[in-house]
Amino acid sequence: MTDCLPLDLPDWAIPYDDRSLIIADDEGRMRLAIELARQNVEHGTGGPFGAAIFSQAEGRLLAIGVNSVLRLNSSVLHAEMMAIMRAQRLLGTYTLKQPGHALYSSCEPCAMCLGGILWSGIERLVCAAPAEAARAIGFDEGPVRPDSYNHLERAGIAILRGVMADEGTQVILRYQAAGGTIYNA
Amino acid sequence: MTDCLPLDLPDWAIPYDDRSLIIADDEGRMRLAIELARQNVEHGTGGPFGAAIFSQAEGRLLAIGVNSVLRLNSSVLHAEMMAIMRAQRLLGTYTLKQPGHALYSSCEPCAMCLGGILWSGIERLVCAAPAEAARAIGFDEGPVRPDSYNHLERAGIAILRGVMADEGTQVILRYQAAGGTIYNA
Repeated sequence: MTDCLPLDLPDWAIPYDDRSLIIADDEGRMRLAIELARQNVEHGTGGPFGAAIFSQAEGRLLAIGVNSVLRLNSSVLHAEMMAIMRAQRLLGTYTLKQPGHALYSSCEPCAMCLGGILWSGIERLVCAAPAEAARAIGFDEGPVRPDSYNHLERAGIAILRGVMADEGTQVILRYQAAGGTIYNA
Repeated sequence: MTDCLPLDLPDWAIPYDDRSLIIADDEGRMRLAIELARQNVEHGTGGPFGAAIFSQAEGRLLAIGVNSVLRLNSSVLHAEMMAIMRAQRLLGTYTLKQPGHALYSSCEPCAMCLGGILWSGIERLVCAAPAEAARAIGFDEGPVRPDSYNHLERAGIAILRGVMADEGTQVILRYQAAGGTIYNA
């Protein structure tokens, strides 16, 4: 059992994992990431975070992820990491560079995910809710500083923050209102 | 194939994955992490990095990891992340808090792994080679700052750096001399 980390999606998420889906614009792609976060809360399958990876030029969905730390018992399984791991499994490679891919996250990534994005070959990162929204309900985001984003940009990753920030934040507040677990608090 | 991330050890490493092993002292435990890094280079199975997780009080080996990015085609599979994922699979939980565990890494962790350690429940981090040794041969370590370590310490993680630093560095230099791939450079 140590020789594999399960990356199963919750049952409700499987219809969203549709590689025929093409979405041209940032808001449309982000709407999917936030919907995944929202459904994860509504179904009680994990924290209020969702992510989706699209090919940058065509806008074709490659992989999705939802926070699965508690469901799959792995502290690594934040939404972004799950999406990256699933995407690389699909392409059979450790880098998503060819063709270029963009990752949409319903909340600004924690320190682990920001580092994970740097190694993933993702060429563009788009975020909704500010990290502060996650911190405000008790999630530690780890050592992320303004310069952390600069580091990724210097490495050639384009970053756009604050796309549908209110919608991403609402899902986080909904998790708090529903009494969701703040793991590793 | 997207529903699982392989965490297989290379064949040569399997005898090292011995949960009856008990090592009381930091140097002895670090010697294992560095030996894993060295063997990974000698066998051409990955980057010059190894990690091992021991129960803090008893010193019993729980899990090992070696850099497996190229071998298993996942940018997430740094030695530390592999050890954490294997350890949590063994214990069947997303936190290594009970009983307390220490992670030994042959080199100071990159940004992703440092964040990953923060969420893992590890209570003590011990490192050998300085991050600068990895940077010097072309590996980007990501946005790690002195304050990143302070963040982990404030979260209750004890950190000891520079244990057998020369031995850890030698393995990194050996990788460079052998013409090892600097992936994601």
